Amino acid sequence: MPSPAPRRTLWNKFPLKTGYRWLNLLLLFVPTAVILDLLHAPPLAIFVASALAIAPLASALGESTGVLAAHCGPAVGGILSATMGNATEMIIAFFALHAGHINVVKASLSGSIIGNLLLVLGLSLVAGGIRNPVQRFSSTTSSMNSTTLMIAVAALVMPAVFNLTLFGTLQHHDVNLQNLSLWTSGVLILLYLLNMLFVFRTHRATFAAQPHEEGISQATQKPSRGQAIFSLGLATALIAWMSEILVGQISPVTKALGMTELFVGVIVVALVGNAAENSTAIIMARRNKMDISMAIATGASTQIALFVAPVLVFISVAIGHPMTLVFNGFEIAAIILSVLIVELISSDGETNWFEGAQLLAVYAIVAVAFYFVPE
Amino acid sequence: MPSPAPRRTLWNKFPLKTGYRWLNLLLLFVPTAVILDLLHAPPLAIFVASALAIAPLASALGESTGVLAAHCGPAVGGILSATMGNATEMIIAFFALHAGHINVVKASLSGSIIGNLLLVLGLSLVAGGIRNPVQRFSSTTSSMNSTTLMIAVAALVMPAVFNLTLFGTLQHHDVNLQNLSLWTSGVLILLYLLNMLFVFRTHRATFAAQPHEEGISQATQKPSRGQAIFSLGLATALIAWMSEILVGQISPVTKALGMTELFVGVIVVALVGNAAENSTAIIMARRNKMDISMAIATGASTQIALFVAPVLVFISVAIGHPMTLVFNGFEIAAIILSVLIVELISSDGETNWFEGAQLLAVYAIVAVAFYFVPE
Amino acid sequence: MPSPAPRRTLWNKFPLKTGYRWLNLLLLFVPTAVILDLLHAPPLAIFVASALAIAPLASALGESTGVLAAHCGPAVGGILSATMGNATEMIIAFFALHAGHINVVKASLSGSIIGNLLLVLGLSLVAGGIRNPVQRFSSTTSSMNSTTLMIAVAALVMPAVFNLTLFGTLQHHDVNLQNLSLWTSGVLILLYLLNMLFVFRTHRATFAAQPHEEGISQATQKPSRGQAIFSLGLATALIAWMSEILVGQISPVTKALGMTELFVGVIVVALVGNAAENSTAIIMARRNKMDISMAIATGASTQIALFVAPVLVFISVAIGHPMTLVFNGFEIAAIILSVLIVELISSDGETNWFEGAQLLAVYAIVAVAFYFVPE
Repeated sequence: MPSPAPRRTLWNKFPLKTGYRWLNLLLLFVPTAVILDLLHAPPLAIFVASALAIAPLASALGESTGVLAAHCGPAVGGILSATMGNATEMIIAFFALHAGHINVVKASLSGSIIGNLLLVLGLSLVAGGIRNPVQRFSSTTSSMNSTTLMIAVAALVMPAVFNLTLFGTLQHHDVNLQNLSLWTSGVLILLYLLNMLFVFRTHRATFAAQPHEEGISQATQKPSRGQAIFSLGLATALIAWMSEILVGQISPVTKALGMTELFVGVIVVALVGNAAENSTAIIMARRNKMDISMAIATGASTQIALFVAPVLVFISVAIGHPMTLVFNGFEIAAIILSVLIVELISSDGETNWFEGAQLLAVYAIVAVAFYFVPE
Repeated sequence: MPSPAPRRTLWNKFPLKTGYRWLNLLLLFVPTAVILDLLHAPPLAIFVASALAIAPLASALGESTGVLAAHCGPAVGGILSATMGNATEMIIAFFALHAGHINVVKASLSGSIIGNLLLVLGLSLVAGGIRNPVQRFSSTTSSMNSTTLMIAVAALVMPAVFNLTLFGTLQHHDVNLQNLSLWTSGVLILLYLLNMLFVFRTHRATFAAQPHEEGISQATQKPSRGQAIFSLGLATALIAWMSEILVGQISPVTKALGMTELFVGVIVVALVGNAAENSTAIIMARRNKMDISMAIATGASTQIALFVAPVLVFISVAIGHPMTLVFNGFEIAAIILSVLIVELISSDGETNWFEGAQLLAVYAIVAVAFYFVPE
Repeated sequence: MPSPAPRRTLWNKFPLKTGYRWLNLLLLFVPTAVILDLLHAPPLAIFVASALAIAPLASALGESTGVLAAHCGPAVGGILSATMGNATEMIIAFFALHAGHINVVKASLSGSIIGNLLLVLGLSLVAGGIRNPVQRFSSTTSSMNSTTLMIAVAALVMPAVFNLTLFGTLQHHDVNLQNLSLWTSGVLILLYLLNMLFVFRTHRATFAAQPHEEGISQATQKPSRGQAIFSLGLATALIAWMSEILVGQISPVTKALGMTELFVGVIVVALVGNAAENSTAIIMARRNKMDISMAIATGASTQIALFVAPVLVFISVAIGHPMTLVFNGFEIAAIILSVLIVELISSDGETNWFEGAQLLAVYAIVAVAFYFVPE
């Protein structure tokens, strides 16, 4: 079906618009957040406004990355897409680290992994499974991602064992642990680069059939390379601004809500940060494109584990708020359980709504536990 | 081969008879247990007699449930069968909870899961594998059960992590932990109901080919609905009576045997409670009906984890002897190992006698560890 | 391609020569080690010389076992090959136990398991995967080995749980733990014997197509039975001599290198002990014979777990330096992670270079953690 001839209006040249009308509307929260912040409005209002403002910006950043990638050829474009896909998380985490919210950053990292594997994937399987009794997908990508997630498990278990075996607690922090975290992070980043080499070079043909970011906004004309770079820069700058406002409200908001930093980080921040993946994965599942849906959910988790988290370890040391790879017991247990469950569900290349319900049940069990952890 | 015309004798109308002659003989232990109890016989004698009396009653209850289910149509009948299949365990556990034997109840729950996964399945694979070099089964049911068991693992790991992380011990008990156990139990029961919906409604066709309880007693004429309800009620009442007698002997018997409550609960009580599943699963494996054999062994475990255990958590709070989902370290480790091993063995849809031996080896390793735990 | 007619020289009758020219050259380290030891040379020089001397001896022992096995018929020959394949590790461990280096023995056992699963297999997959985009193998053997390794995990987790639950530390040692270790070891050895029965008797046909030790030295004429027995005896005696020299240097070498006994045992000794498996597995992978490559790497691990380790537990008690099955936290975590990763990688019957890189990444993560463990 040919798309209608695009109307060349001023709006069509607007650098931050996304393919979804309702996402575009959320852009109104960008000035709203700034005004609320200047007016010293209640923390929760500022927090919500800046969180809502980040959603369309993240989406616009993703789309302009996609356009830029299309101008670059498959290999460079693929690497660009994969890496910039985490730009939003990275920017938020950078400001949170800078403000000393190390535990919130860790919590949002583990929350993103758990949230993508259990909530995003679970909702996708339910949404798709209600329409289609059985949905099939190629297990090549998901099998590779399962193994990669198990390596991430290794990378967070060994430092935890280090602390537990030698000091009897996960809370210990010394120079050996910091070195261990840095070296382990280095191994993860190296593996991430090898993964790029594998997917975009040596085994390109295997993965070519699985477009990671299917163009949803095909109706509008493709912008030029220059326009894409400008959109990218503008979106990044605004995300940084919104993140700074958002991060400044973490402490007052957690107090106002009577929730712990852990719960806010793992459940609330992770939900906000993954809204985009969430909606795309569900839409793809409803269209019975499970390959894309699975790739988004498990891919987002592996990128956080193999790229975002280890890069943040290095950044944290550089900016003087050193973060290790030692997560707390709840986070470690929840990540291991998520990885095992997703492996069990995805290994046969078939899904149905009950498997989605199983994932959501584990998410509920994990969320309940996080909820009852006292301050 | 057509069955011989049934003789319409008084015995044929006896409400508690089962399809097996030797099981019927065990009914003599019902009055024996009552008499021994009244005579204040040695605890071990009463314990053994009441345990042996429960076996045929559990079987009679199962068969009359089956008859009643056949009168109800597939969906309601299936749910009835699945739920009443745990009635015996539930009744014994109720009386044990009432008498304050919380650790024995927990031990028998974990013992049932471990026993079904390792001992029942292991004996079945060996018994079947000696006759048939390779046995095949559809992996649909066993794959669903594997995932469900991993969710049960999540449900018992998170409360354990809660206690270990916050208090450094599994023995702690506070109101947060109780609430966490109740909410987690609620999630499990909800998932159990969704599982019923999946198996008996939305994906009925997939599971229709796998009769859970193949009629073993086809030789006798099907009783009427009224007869079935009467049998069901009578069997339930007698099981309750026998259970009360059995539970009263737990403390003196463990002392007399020089064994711990943990060992008695995990190994001895679990063996008694699963005698019926055990014999049926082995018989089916010898007849090369591995689908049924696997469904019995893994199905029994999932029902205990998703239905019996969480319902008992709610009951325990109601009757004032609150039980949490925190099991001890041995039980947690043994359940996780059992689930992982069964997943490894069942994922390829084929079994042989050596895989049975592997399951039995794990059961032996686990039983040895439980044996050496001091009081 | 027919091999050239062998030259019947004195060298051809030399009882310790192997199929590889460079391995034969290493035989010169046998007298070198003896001389260095007599001269009280620096410990590191003696250590390296005796380690290098063991490599060709282990290989010669393996080849003469293969010849002897060929004279014995498939069943006895297979058992002989499998069992003698661990002779070198066993001899080194015997002398180390005798000298009281219990932790070094444990470390080299876990190091061998980890090293074979991650390093040997990882290098093989990379070496083979660079030449062939996708390599396939029959998953029968590797699936059986995966399950067996999970049983080994059970055997080392339960004693650890025993100590942690009852005493809050892995370092406790009492008579119950020793009995638990002995019984568990007994179960493992029994399972090893059943495995032999399965592979070489009841399911011989399934495994017949997978020659474990493909003759690499086909160019030379097969020696007679008597020659093979003589070679076997001589190699064994020399390995024992070299082992005694090697073990005597463990303490001074660890001090000289500034490394811990744990790191030396897990990484260094394990590397030396598995040099032979390493080279053969890689050569086979490059020839696209992944069945053999996988069988060597996973088979070596299972034999250590099911045979070498439990036999050493019995020997240790016999010679008065009792060793239990309780490993330290790092070793347990590393073994569990290795087993899970290998299972994930091998379950689909296909490998590529990136899966090799994933295994090597886990090895690096584990090795880094062992490196940073202080004395």
